Amino acid sequence: MSRAMFRLTRDGAVARLTLDRPEARNAIAAAGWAELAHAVGEAGDARLLIVSGAGAAFCAGADLADFPVFREDEAARIRFRVEMRAALDRLRDLPVPTIAHIEGPCYGAGVALAMACDLRIATADARFAITPAKIGISYPQEDVHRLVALVGPGQAARLLFTAAAIGAEEALRIGLVELVGGVAPLVAAILANDGASLAALKRAIALGRSDAGQDWRFDALIGGEEAARRLEALRRK
Amino acid sequence: MSRAMFRLTRDGAVARLTLDRPEARNAIAAAGWAELAHAVGEAGDARLLIVSGAGAAFCAGADLADFPVFREDEAARIRFRVEMRAALDRLRDLPVPTIAHIEGPCYGAGVALAMACDLRIATADARFAITPAKIGISYPQEDVHRLVALVGPGQAARLLFTAAAIGAEEALRIGLVELVGGVAPLVAAILANDGASLAALKRAIALGRSDAGQDWRFDALIGGEEAARRLEALRRK
Amino acid sequence: MSRAMFRLTRDGAVARLTLDRPEARNAIAAAGWAELAHAVGEAGDARLLIVSGAGAAFCAGADLADFPVFREDEAARIRFRVEMRAALDRLRDLPVPTIAHIEGPCYGAGVALAMACDLRIATADARFAITPAKIGISYPQEDVHRLVALVGPGQAARLLFTAAAIGAEEALRIGLVELVGGVAPLVAAILANDGASLAALKRAIALGRSDAGQDWRFDALIGGEEAARRLEALRRK
Repeated sequence: MSRAMFRLTRDGAVARLTLDRPEARNAIAAAGWAELAHAVGEAGDARLLIVSGAGAAFCAGADLADFPVFREDEAARIRFRVEMRAALDRLRDLPVPTIAHIEGPCYGAGVALAMACDLRIATADARFAITPAKIGISYPQEDVHRLVALVGPGQAARLLFTAAAIGAEEALRIGLVELVGGVAPLVAAILANDGASLAALKRAIALGRSDAGQDWRFDALIGGEEAARRLEALRRK
Repeated sequence: MSRAMFRLTRDGAVARLTLDRPEARNAIAAAGWAELAHAVGEAGDARLLIVSGAGAAFCAGADLADFPVFREDEAARIRFRVEMRAALDRLRDLPVPTIAHIEGPCYGAGVALAMACDLRIATADARFAITPAKIGISYPQEDVHRLVALVGPGQAARLLFTAAAIGAEEALRIGLVELVGGVAPLVAAILANDGASLAALKRAIALGRSDAGQDWRFDALIGGEEAARRLEALRRK
Repeated sequence: MSRAMFRLTRDGAVARLTLDRPEARNAIAAAGWAELAHAVGEAGDARLLIVSGAGAAFCAGADLADFPVFREDEAARIRFRVEMRAALDRLRDLPVPTIAHIEGPCYGAGVALAMACDLRIATADARFAITPAKIGISYPQEDVHRLVALVGPGQAARLLFTAAAIGAEEALRIGLVELVGGVAPLVAAILANDGASLAALKRAIALGRSDAGQDWRFDALIGGEEAARRLEALRRK
């Protein structure tokens, strides 16, 4: 890649990660995944991260221009899988809320990127398709798992087996996005809440049924300064 | 608490657990959880339990008046967590169908109470919000797990991170309630069915993939008197 | 049974399994499950399998005429459970996409049959009910598990506890079917895709979070001939 395609900018407490390759509808080249992991690492001290695409697209998926190389070079295709996984999981593991703000096309690995965020909010013109079967490849196991967690095994099969594109309203109905509309009210609602609470709740969603550590976090927060301050503020209203 | 806030009444085979503190929109004081566990224990011989609130509210959540004490007293906050868990799990483990009938506000721990029931039916004016992040606290791990099981990880993140209130129709769409409407037809449909079947099916939903014990229960019911009686009744219709 | 009730036919790459007992709304007699397992075994070399019912019904469920025998004969009821399980799991494990095309009634074990397919597409007149509690029996543990995976524990409780019938639109809303409409476009979309991709993706949906074997399959497909051919075809368009 001649230049970086991920731009991390800050607006106060909010970090924004922009896929900035609009001439290719923000398709991600093989070299882009390490760049994404690096950009996510820079966002750690923000209170919230928004992921969105430049131009009128979220992400067209992995850049197909790299695929002839994958065919020739086994090391390159292993590196592709490993670096994509590392970047997506680094995003998933950020301790602050992450929002994918999806306009226009969101295809293939672009859906995996959106699913690595906690929340997905789409504009009315967003379109989603998961297309590996169309080009004779597979989809990473962890991302299939995340898809099943969001939409269930039946809709996962439908999306993966047909590779069909669906619109924002259908994505909302089946659970691939949580909201359709503008991102500003969502960001404002989250920023009004307590950061330590948000971190504990994000951890709780990621965990399974039982985790003793979460009990002690629950006790610590309920006995803390911030809870006292917020209760007092509520009482005065 | 000056008086009991949970009333358990009986109407034939149906037990009704009423949150009876309408002046506080049925907010549950710290001492109320042990009382709830006790009341649930009295309902064991009913065929079905309905949980609802007095006045035009289901439950405003945990009573915030107790929180200054939690800040001062570590033992009190641990007791709060443990007694809330014990009460909710005792409700969850009742061997008969349980229905949360939700009118008006259902907030914070009130949602955990509703999620401890098998089914949630809401009136059109019901409103739901899970608000720990608003007041700088967390939410019990098991209740986050139940939320994820009902609405998926994405909508769980949205509800927990924003603390936003949603109405009955949206709660229905995302899976936080199963029905919107009156509770009577639901109760009648369940009471028409066989109690031993209902107990086996409730157990089956709670269990994971495999459980050999369930196979023997399946065989026993299919060979039993009640199945014979019901088949004969069906044949005569 | 006087004659076979499952017919397996072929139309090019598509296998069709027809429940052909329209005079009983395709109710499945106890002896039918072994027949089903056999028919599924014949479909292994197709690229896709459609399961549907003759006449205007999908399947009325297990044939209740067998139930008096189950009461008398313990071996018969165990055989019923084991053979039903084996048939449904053989269908589930077919390595090609399977579609239940549901017209009219789909009740009891008919729902288990539909859930053993990857995808469920219903006509507008389809009706679904899971009725064991009505006749005093239980439902196989694995099929309850599949129901919970598709519709969540709350809607599973509602369907199992009430035994109520729901229509196609409601089945779509809660996730019991993935599509309402005609089956032809769905079949065409899947057949246009790569068979090795479909097999890998079907396996990925069935697996849990991590499976190292899937990584190597991912690498193999991305380096394969078929991916190269499909990419070249895409490039030419």
